[in-house]
Amino acid sequence: MLLFVALATRSQGKRRAILEATIRVLREQGLGGLKIEDVARAAEIGKGTVYLYFRDKRELLKALVEHRATEFYADAEAILTEDRPFFERLRELLARRLAFVDEWRGLWAAVAAEVAQGEAKKAWLTGLHERYHRILTDFVQSGIARGELREGLDPALVAATISALGCAPQLPVDREAYLDQLVEIFRKGVGAKP
Amino acid sequence: MLLFVALATRSQGKRRAILEATIRVLREQGLGGLKIEDVARAAEIGKGTVYLYFRDKRELLKALVEHRATEFYADAEAILTEDRPFFERLRELLARRLAFVDEWRGLWAAVAAEVAQGEAKKAWLTGLHERYHRILTDFVQSGIARGELREGLDPALVAATISALGCAPQLPVDREAYLDQLVEIFRKGVGAKP
Repeated sequence: MLLFVALATRSQGKRRAILEATIRVLREQGLGGLKIEDVARAAEIGKGTVYLYFRDKRELLKALVEHRATEFYADAEAILTEDRPFFERLRELLARRLAFVDEWRGLWAAVAAEVAQGEAKKAWLTGLHERYHRILTDFVQSGIARGELREGLDPALVAATISALGCAPQLPVDREAYLDQLVEIFRKGVGAKP
Repeated sequence: MLLFVALATRSQGKRRAILEATIRVLREQGLGGLKIEDVARAAEIGKGTVYLYFRDKRELLKALVEHRATEFYADAEAILTEDRPFFERLRELLARRLAFVDEWRGLWAAVAAEVAQGEAKKAWLTGLHERYHRILTDFVQSGIARGELREGLDPALVAATISALGCAPQLPVDREAYLDQLVEIFRKGVGAKP
């Protein structure tokens, strides 16, 4: 049993190493010329080993988007469950989210487009969004429980608004001033003390 | 001169007819199998005529995204310059924007990805976004001038926030309740009367 756990952990470690290597290759070469061979070289393993973990390039890319999204959700959850004022946590979350969306626009959107089309893609992306929505709904509930947000708010709706506020408009505005503005509007909009 | 204007108008009409036909073909067949031949058939013109207006498929698709975006901006401008309360206009704009973003996610994002890559694409999309930002900035200024928004707001920053609020989160929330919530937060956040 212990051996099995150790092997499983090592296997997870290798899987992760392949995904991280794929990110490096994508950043250097873009999606166009991505070859499993380059990924293997970057991960310092054999090409055949990559295929032990991922059936083909499409499966690798799908796992990669999930890996990046999951990392972001883990970061978000860590920030949002800290014992700090609600609007401080909100500002930090939004700053991370805008950075993530900028990165996403550059590369991950193209990767996601490779992965699936039509209804299958929609269902898959909706699953990822729902996870984010659950994290944000818990966060809003914690704000109400702490008395920092007004009572009577619908946590799911407020969470959807926070989700929207994380869209980075590609506009010529100062990022820090923009974040301050978002948080100020939100504080006045849902804060307990107007 | 009159003849020239008449010909130019007829030419604009035909160009538009080709773009509208392309939209119909894309909606039926998706982007994968798009052929200029099908577009010509849908527009009830010869294939050669399409090439008088668009050098190739890429140029046609680029013109199409601009056409749809320009239509949306014209709609937005019409709504936002009506003589009605600021927050009523805002709600109508956001409802249209969410519908546009839903449509965009389904098809136009794929079309836009075909059109250009890297820096050229970024510059082109930024140009489209900046037009929207100018329309929204004028709208915010009108709200301040009418005394419906607080003085001392930075119109460009508030416009950027409205732009973000137009992101449709793909989440299981009721669209109408979500719109009400957005407008309420925004009213409390920047409205003149808290």
